[in-house]
Amino acid sequence: MNTHIVRSYDEELKYLGNRLAAMGGHAERMVDQSVLALVNADAGLARKVIADDAFLDDAQREVDDKAIVLIAKRQPMADDLREVIGAIRIAADLERVGDLGKNIAKRVVAVTEGRQPLSLFRGLQALAELALTQLKDVLDVYASRSVAKLALMRDRDDQIDAMYTSLFRELLTYMMEDTRNITPCTHLLFCAKNIERIGDHATNIAETVYYVVTGEQMPIDRPKQDKSHNVVFKDDAG
Amino acid sequence: MNTHIVRSYDEELKYLGNRLAAMGGHAERMVDQSVLALVNADAGLARKVIADDAFLDDAQREVDDKAIVLIAKRQPMADDLREVIGAIRIAADLERVGDLGKNIAKRVVAVTEGRQPLSLFRGLQALAELALTQLKDVLDVYASRSVAKLALMRDRDDQIDAMYTSLFRELLTYMMEDTRNITPCTHLLFCAKNIERIGDHATNIAETVYYVVTGEQMPIDRPKQDKSHNVVFKDDAG
Repeated sequence: MNTHIVRSYDEELKYLGNRLAAMGGHAERMVDQSVLALVNADAGLARKVIADDAFLDDAQREVDDKAIVLIAKRQPMADDLREVIGAIRIAADLERVGDLGKNIAKRVVAVTEGRQPLSLFRGLQALAELALTQLKDVLDVYASRSVAKLALMRDRDDQIDAMYTSLFRELLTYMMEDTRNITPCTHLLFCAKNIERIGDHATNIAETVYYVVTGEQMPIDRPKQDKSHNVVFKDDAG
Repeated sequence: MNTHIVRSYDEELKYLGNRLAAMGGHAERMVDQSVLALVNADAGLARKVIADDAFLDDAQREVDDKAIVLIAKRQPMADDLREVIGAIRIAADLERVGDLGKNIAKRVVAVTEGRQPLSLFRGLQALAELALTQLKDVLDVYASRSVAKLALMRDRDDQIDAMYTSLFRELLTYMMEDTRNITPCTHLLFCAKNIERIGDHATNIAETVYYVVTGEQMPIDRPKQDKSHNVVFKDDAG
């Protein structure tokens, strides 16, 4: 739109940073509202979240296009090039977070047809809160460039995985207690998985930020704590 | 390692292309073997698939590093720049496909503790076959640059989504018939979802290839056919 304005390189980088900040805020809000829609069986709010996703798709394309034009035009070296590549990666992660929020919103009707105990929603809400704090913190680190804080995020990532595994187990138990719970709880399982994946995207962004700031790859991943794939009930005939 | 060898720009691009081809073959094999491990309750093969994932993690880092050095050193313009950015994106998608295969492999023990009817595995195998054909085809288009073939992939993408939704429904029915099926079928649901997502990654790669070859974004996404989020059984007390 403002193609007639010649921006300085720093201004162009700053513009990308602002777009990413807007994308981050938008993605957080979508996830937050999708969980709220689930808890309150609010189909209207769910529809709003689904419609809101278009903003992130457009913003990602814009960041990509601008970043590539920037590289081609300015031919940045080392540090600056990392900034631009980092912006492309972070935009992709944020767009995916929005997709996950949209997917939760799409399940609202299927979930709220049944009657789930509030404790399950509480578990999901707590998981979402943790994942969103993680996302918010990593975007703060990106804005402030204080990578030392990334180390603190590790513990919370483990917490998210542990909470997800326990929620997975709880949902299975509930399905076994009453077959009428199977359909809604299956959708809740996918919602929980989506939220756990938001934590993974926050981790991806942390790795990108580390790379942008230091020029090095973050030390290789610690073992994953998501143990849900092992969950088996031996005594599940009940 | 071979830093003393001065490669031409074309040779460096070709090297990236070869790494991506190797990554593609490796990811396909992992997914194929993970489903085989599931069908044959083969825990040994599952462990192999899990171990095989490290190759893709390493290869992605290598492609990223090489691509960024290439941009910084050669400062490519338009077409060549798109090639390099495309390589970064495709490597990320292939790494994710490997993760999805690994996740299926991790569920082998939990799934094969129960006794599932062969028809469910057959559904999963058919879904995997379709998704892997999709992945193979898009990598062929990438190698051959014949983007006209991308249009043909659309139909298959719709087929994958429809097949996934029907498998989702089938697995829910089976869980309702016998509560002992709940745990293994839940894991199978996640396996099916993983395979459906492999189809999505093939679509992402198709979009990247289109962009690399034409310099334009692929026309915006058609409506998604995955209707599984709507699946509700009204009469599920039985």
